[in-house]
Amino acid sequence: MKLLNNKTPRVSLVGAGPGDPELLTIKGLKAIKSADVILYDALCNEMLLEEAPTQTVKIFVGKRAGKHSFKQSEINLLLVQNAFRYGHAVRLKGGDPFVFGRGYEELEYIEAFDIPVELIPGISSSISLPALQKVPLTHRGLSEGFWVVTASTASGRLSNDIALAAQSSSTVVILMGMRKLKAIVEIYQSFGQGDLSVMIVQNGSLPTEKVAIGTIDTIESIKKENQLSTPAIIVIGEVVALRHRAALNKQFYAALSESK
Amino acid sequence: MKLLNNKTPRVSLVGAGPGDPELLTIKGLKAIKSADVILYDALCNEMLLEEAPTQTVKIFVGKRAGKHSFKQSEINLLLVQNAFRYGHAVRLKGGDPFVFGRGYEELEYIEAFDIPVELIPGISSSISLPALQKVPLTHRGLSEGFWVVTASTASGRLSNDIALAAQSSSTVVILMGMRKLKAIVEIYQSFGQGDLSVMIVQNGSLPTEKVAIGTIDTIESIKKENQLSTPAIIVIGEVVALRHRAALNKQFYAALSESK
Repeated sequence: MKLLNNKTPRVSLVGAGPGDPELLTIKGLKAIKSADVILYDALCNEMLLEEAPTQTVKIFVGKRAGKHSFKQSEINLLLVQNAFRYGHAVRLKGGDPFVFGRGYEELEYIEAFDIPVELIPGISSSISLPALQKVPLTHRGLSEGFWVVTASTASGRLSNDIALAAQSSSTVVILMGMRKLKAIVEIYQSFGQGDLSVMIVQNGSLPTEKVAIGTIDTIESIKKENQLSTPAIIVIGEVVALRHRAALNKQFYAALSESK
Repeated sequence: MKLLNNKTPRVSLVGAGPGDPELLTIKGLKAIKSADVILYDALCNEMLLEEAPTQTVKIFVGKRAGKHSFKQSEINLLLVQNAFRYGHAVRLKGGDPFVFGRGYEELEYIEAFDIPVELIPGISSSISLPALQKVPLTHRGLSEGFWVVTASTASGRLSNDIALAAQSSSTVVILMGMRKLKAIVEIYQSFGQGDLSVMIVQNGSLPTEKVAIGTIDTIESIKKENQLSTPAIIVIGEVVALRHRAALNKQFYAALSESK
């Protein structure tokens, strides 16, 4: 199907990564550069919009304090309308579109109009924000996997999976969990995991980044002391302690080279 | 510290993504373009090496059938030696360096020599290969999280976490699991999950990609029929069935528009 402007409607669902604009993929950048219209939300770095041609239409579809928040059904409709109006619509989403991004809902809605959808993965905050703190989600002998879970389910209750996660040897990354930290801590404590290491990363990979490290037993008071709030991820597992070990190693080697 | 060539030794640990060279990040590309030496393994797309300056030294440190396989300790040493010899050493690793990539072992070893290490995350196969099949790891009402686990632990046994994963509502992604598929299937069957959807993606995102879909009860025979082998990921969960639903929707809408 051709539009009046001789373009063909299509949509690219693009993961914008965790915040640092250079953590966008080359494929994502190409999509932005060829976009006729970009629909972006609050978790995307707006510097990425500058990569688009000047005539590209930019539409904000996110949530902002005190302003209209777009419902998912409105965003779905806007994507289809704008692809039909302008041609190549880029849906720019923070992180990866398919990790708690409701990207599949958008894909299914758009494809129902027979508009082709290209999926361009993004660097997920769940993996990259711990990594940028030099905390690996897996590490031989410490963690055989990682589990990414949201604390904020569609029904509003805390996911039952967190109790299973608390029994595993995997690193657990909890998204949207800051308001439920107390309940999460209680689950881990009920499995005798009070000493397990915990890290909170707020505004990860951005200049406003804040990081705090503690244990299951101490993290709530640490959160208060450091005035940590959303958006943030919670990382639970022995791998978090590696960050502390790295700092000790650095001191050790520094002392060693001074003593030479 | 300056080298004789007036360069400063430093290392960038770069995630090369799942295979498609355009799924490298902009930051990863910049690192390659400024590399004095690149150490890469078998899971990296070699097309990425062409982005480096012609004088950049390229060293293969992976595993190849019939040839010498590098041990992790050898790779660690080569990274340090080459940073001291050439300056900016880029360690290019398939996927993300910190997801079963042993990247932390390299980081810790290199930092012990007081060489600065920059970590540049990559698109992990665990998330992106399902996404490129239009299978979201999370989807409201179906999956509240995802669990990435390796079947091949340091000790050689199957991870106990797979039994916990089989009881969860999260999507489970198993890496290095093809040789242990039978044992994985038996665990899921012991929890009455024989009808759960399973997808295998071999050589994901590459022209040689192969995909097969079945259930826990059928996936072993499907694997044999389709002659699937490594490297592959196994995705288990209700979200896999969305791919089938999408195909049905497409048929439905196509029939609808024909009947108009």
